[in-house]
Amino acid sequence: MPKLDIHRLSMAHPGDLSALAALIAAGELRAGDIRAVIGKTEGNGGLNDFTRGFFTQSLMLLLAAQTGEAPAALAARIPCVLSGGTEGALSPHYLVFSVSDLAASGQRGLALGTAFSPVTPAREVGRDAQIAAVAQAVRDAMAAAGIARAEDVALVQVKASAPPTPDASCRTADPKALMAYSRAAAAFGVGLALRDIAPDSATEAALLRDLTLYSNRASISSGVEVLCNEVVVFGYADGWAEGIVAGVAPMADLLDLAGVQAAFAKAPGEVLGVLAKGEPDRSGAIRGFRHTMLGDTDIDAQRHLRGALGAIVAAVAGDGRVFVSGGAEHQGPAGGGLVCVFARERRK
Amino acid sequence: MPKLDIHRLSMAHPGDLSALAALIAAGELRAGDIRAVIGKTEGNGGLNDFTRGFFTQSLMLLLAAQTGEAPAALAARIPCVLSGGTEGALSPHYLVFSVSDLAASGQRGLALGTAFSPVTPAREVGRDAQIAAVAQAVRDAMAAAGIARAEDVALVQVKASAPPTPDASCRTADPKALMAYSRAAAAFGVGLALRDIAPDSATEAALLRDLTLYSNRASISSGVEVLCNEVVVFGYADGWAEGIVAGVAPMADLLDLAGVQAAFAKAPGEVLGVLAKGEPDRSGAIRGFRHTMLGDTDIDAQRHLRGALGAIVAAVAGDGRVFVSGGAEHQGPAGGGLVCVFARERRK
Amino acid sequence: MPKLDIHRLSMAHPGDLSALAALIAAGELRAGDIRAVIGKTEGNGGLNDFTRGFFTQSLMLLLAAQTGEAPAALAARIPCVLSGGTEGALSPHYLVFSVSDLAASGQRGLALGTAFSPVTPAREVGRDAQIAAVAQAVRDAMAAAGIARAEDVALVQVKASAPPTPDASCRTADPKALMAYSRAAAAFGVGLALRDIAPDSATEAALLRDLTLYSNRASISSGVEVLCNEVVVFGYADGWAEGIVAGVAPMADLLDLAGVQAAFAKAPGEVLGVLAKGEPDRSGAIRGFRHTMLGDTDIDAQRHLRGALGAIVAAVAGDGRVFVSGGAEHQGPAGGGLVCVFARERRK
Amino acid sequence: MPKLDIHRLSMAHPGDLSALAALIAAGELRAGDIRAVIGKTEGNGGLNDFTRGFFTQSLMLLLAAQTGEAPAALAARIPCVLSGGTEGALSPHYLVFSVSDLAASGQRGLALGTAFSPVTPAREVGRDAQIAAVAQAVRDAMAAAGIARAEDVALVQVKASAPPTPDASCRTADPKALMAYSRAAAAFGVGLALRDIAPDSATEAALLRDLTLYSNRASISSGVEVLCNEVVVFGYADGWAEGIVAGVAPMADLLDLAGVQAAFAKAPGEVLGVLAKGEPDRSGAIRGFRHTMLGDTDIDAQRHLRGALGAIVAAVAGDGRVFVSGGAEHQGPAGGGLVCVFARERRK
Repeated sequence: MPKLDIHRLSMAHPGDLSALAALIAAGELRAGDIRAVIGKTEGNGGLNDFTRGFFTQSLMLLLAAQTGEAPAALAARIPCVLSGGTEGALSPHYLVFSVSDLAASGQRGLALGTAFSPVTPAREVGRDAQIAAVAQAVRDAMAAAGIARAEDVALVQVKASAPPTPDASCRTADPKALMAYSRAAAAFGVGLALRDIAPDSATEAALLRDLTLYSNRASISSGVEVLCNEVVVFGYADGWAEGIVAGVAPMADLLDLAGVQAAFAKAPGEVLGVLAKGEPDRSGAIRGFRHTMLGDTDIDAQRHLRGALGAIVAAVAGDGRVFVSGGAEHQGPAGGGLVCVFARERRK
Repeated sequence: MPKLDIHRLSMAHPGDLSALAALIAAGELRAGDIRAVIGKTEGNGGLNDFTRGFFTQSLMLLLAAQTGEAPAALAARIPCVLSGGTEGALSPHYLVFSVSDLAASGQRGLALGTAFSPVTPAREVGRDAQIAAVAQAVRDAMAAAGIARAEDVALVQVKASAPPTPDASCRTADPKALMAYSRAAAAFGVGLALRDIAPDSATEAALLRDLTLYSNRASISSGVEVLCNEVVVFGYADGWAEGIVAGVAPMADLLDLAGVQAAFAKAPGEVLGVLAKGEPDRSGAIRGFRHTMLGDTDIDAQRHLRGALGAIVAAVAGDGRVFVSGGAEHQGPAGGGLVCVFARERRK
Repeated sequence: MPKLDIHRLSMAHPGDLSALAALIAAGELRAGDIRAVIGKTEGNGGLNDFTRGFFTQSLMLLLAAQTGEAPAALAARIPCVLSGGTEGALSPHYLVFSVSDLAASGQRGLALGTAFSPVTPAREVGRDAQIAAVAQAVRDAMAAAGIARAEDVALVQVKASAPPTPDASCRTADPKALMAYSRAAAAFGVGLALRDIAPDSATEAALLRDLTLYSNRASISSGVEVLCNEVVVFGYADGWAEGIVAGVAPMADLLDLAGVQAAFAKAPGEVLGVLAKGEPDRSGAIRGFRHTMLGDTDIDAQRHLRGALGAIVAAVAGDGRVFVSGGAEHQGPAGGGLVCVFARERRK
Repeated sequence: MPKLDIHRLSMAHPGDLSALAALIAAGELRAGDIRAVIGKTEGNGGLNDFTRGFFTQSLMLLLAAQTGEAPAALAARIPCVLSGGTEGALSPHYLVFSVSDLAASGQRGLALGTAFSPVTPAREVGRDAQIAAVAQAVRDAMAAAGIARAEDVALVQVKASAPPTPDASCRTADPKALMAYSRAAAAFGVGLALRDIAPDSATEAALLRDLTLYSNRASISSGVEVLCNEVVVFGYADGWAEGIVAGVAPMADLLDLAGVQAAFAKAPGEVLGVLAKGEPDRSGAIRGFRHTMLGDTDIDAQRHLRGALGAIVAAVAGDGRVFVSGGAEHQGPAGGGLVCVFARERRK
């Protein structure tokens, strides 16, 4: 019987995997059981944030030493979704998702499945082809986990590809804008697979235009360091061990404290990990009052956003180890976002 | 009978006083009744934040045109406490505190008193002389408002003087450190006057050293643009009109959501203004987990702090118009702070 | 006989006009003779740089007190071109251009003329209408100064209008991009008037696209605080007093030290003011080697550019009081810029 | 006969060693011949710049794969001096210094020697013990290279240790200040070994206090990632192959263009590498005019400095691949610095 486990580990710097090494050395986690890593490093979260690459290199070196597989092979089968930027109350950390085999028969529990799309050529980023590729990868990951129905899916985390130096074939020449298109297309792919967005609406023409279209179960990062779309699906499936639950709730806007509290209420127990997505309201105001995130020459809008959203979620959690990522295009209502809480149910 | 009123106004930029001009033009507020202004401008909040000076110049020009007094004379009697930095969810705004005479006899209500200390020479900043001067100004402001006892005081807001270019007589040659000493000395002055800190403890030797000493009713800004210590005291006094209440509560640390909620619970009704103080925990960790505010080369620690604290308070308020100021030395427990909510009581 | 004079003055902060006040008080400069001000304040130079507004308000208050004219009337006839950002070696300062009447008959000297275009509606910014309006204002300013021929013009400094919050009628919804279109259109207007760009090439379709089109005598700033295009033309005209010369030279790229030296060589004597324009090379490389200005999440590309270009020009000048402004679209070859030196000729 | 060679290589990001890998693969450089690496990565250059660690990890992995030595052993014998921050015109790159054996007898040429001091305990950083340890390492490195006399030394590059989290035994609790003390002590160590500073002056009491004491042949970085002091000495020695020269010249202040040009004049030929050190003038002014580097809340003073100094040196070099490092305490006159140019002499 497959059993999902989640370890939340701190790091002293982006190359510090000592907590994971200690866990493996202590026999609490088998390196070979690791299926996905989602983490928050202390860079600036932008084009020139190299803390993600440093962490990934360090992680794959550690796992290679433990498993005997080559680092490149590991990177090709273990999604490593990193978001740079631990502004304000946030604390650098990473979640290690592992699946072990339990000598028992499960009933129904939280399952994890992963899939990698084929390499996405630069010209397909932010276009119908990427939407379709991500949708297929979501279906593949669901199948891998044995998640039968779209409504059983709790959350889909995607690391979507974006070319660092767009060429003439690309949808836009601006690398930051292309990253946004990539996130948008991946969100549409998730929405399509989960039927949160209707097939005839999920077209490239609507990307970044029709902001009424979204999937509140999609959490997307885009990164110039990946060439394909890496997908991690969480959902409930028969035959998996019980014990871990995922609570997901939308945020209507950045100040939606009730939305954050709802996600925690849906996942009672010992918190194992928290993910949040959000964005600076494009209208320049929140609940009618002007914010200044979008026009600041000195602090990037996403850094503002992560500091604010991260603090609200961390205050509810009572813990700064929250994965907060900006760029929430089509992952919630415009100006809003989502929160996902993983918790270990208390024994009854 | 004196009656305190509070107007919370937005600004399109730091020189935009049009909302106040409109209020005066509409007859809703007499320029001559204005006693203090506390505001949040969209600068960086540091040594090179000139949005405070721009706002003050614009405010005094408007009031001079309305009252016939010279701008300099107005600036010498109306404390204008500004904090730069509207990171994250915060919205640029200002609170205008006015006192009008009501043709009725009051019972007991929230009173406001102001006082200016004599000019503080650079050598006295952060020393016993400044502590004593602020303590005396607090007593003067209490007397001006008719607030009889220390326990009747809800909050003391101080704008403390700090020389932009320290000379050899100064306690430290670092202008940022001298600003911290000035805030610390002013907090000790408030604590001394309100007996939150014992007289034999409130000495210059303990400043920035003994962080167990604090007054949770002190909210201090320091600014290079002021030469003396400007004090605004809020408290309950006989003879003032009823209707406005102030709720103040400490925050044990940056994630103390319950502390924020407690301040709002103490001031039920229509919120008229919110003030908060806090600081990045000097230990480098919050509740045992590392934060990265103090070692970031690209974003100043106070900008991180305001973005995080501001978002938490704004999420509880449901409104980004929160006055958030860093530099909470001796104004709450180390790593913590305070929240003050002004509200108009709902008619019973 | 009109006689141009230039004073270069330092400021302690963006609201500090004391050096100009002292000059007027000493009788060295008549407030009524001031025709234009070009200055460098210490803000960030971006959308949220309010040091320009603070300086302008302070300047107009001073001149109003001296001349009896209303501040708004002064602002409508005296171009005040400010560039925020004194990165690196740069020193905050401003150049005051005045014209006095000399009881003598001149031969031929450096002349100054100013003109304001009609208000530019938001929909015309970055379009043919703005190109034509600026071209006409350049011709008006030349006529006002008595500059007869295009080849007699040394430099045209323009402060071009840009709406802070673009509406649906605008060429682009991105306020920063609209500022670039405004600068580009103004550069085309100057090029058209001076015949540096052919009439059939100077069309809105070529703006920001055909970077081979440029005028090396155009220096353009765009600002959200101005509603029309303010033009200052410098050139040689009969009847003006001798004594001041302007040396202008193009820079082929950011490292074109010889270009900077050429401008100084063309204006021997006591340096009265230095202006430079440049831009981060869009190709991402300078002379074949990658630069990182365009992809830095923490420091704006224009702040990088000003720090680098300013230091090079200041090193040649031996003086940090250099007006350096980014955004050099169509004001020189792509990736390059220009330098203009004003000097008082040494008596022979 | 030992023969020094220098390769200057570009990188696409801080983990990109492909240029070095290609050089080794092409047989142009033997991995085992590499003695030192000095490079410029595109981080922020401060406490939270992890590009240095990422580069070092990637470099040692590459060399380990090529030589069979363990990465840790390589790091313990090959100094890798990195400075983060490629502001403005600077281009990310690294210099690879190698020494090969030539089947010929040399006369006298530029030699390279390295040495590592013992581990420096945190309490010794910025104290007499560190000064002595660095002085001894300089002597060791000279001996290793066969450099006979202090006057034969051209430049000493040191990477000095600094604890990231100072404890109670440390000279100061501020980690940035401790880095400055470490650089200062290392500069004194170099000055002592080279007799640029007299033994009775080179004491811990004078560190950061007596700025008249300096060695213009010392170039020091401090890094929290190193535990001992790594020293690379360049100088002339008998028996080394001719062909490479080093030109070193002081800069009197940041605008000392003649100083930069002098260093290039001393090393005619094909430029192989350029190093520069400098600092923002502590007086707040350069040649009498105020600069704003030290009081900017949004851009770190060292980032300002590198952008300005780097642009000046790059403009003289005509090439952005310049190693520029701030923090020039006791490495030149206060407010000044030094420039070192390595060049391959043209065949006569």
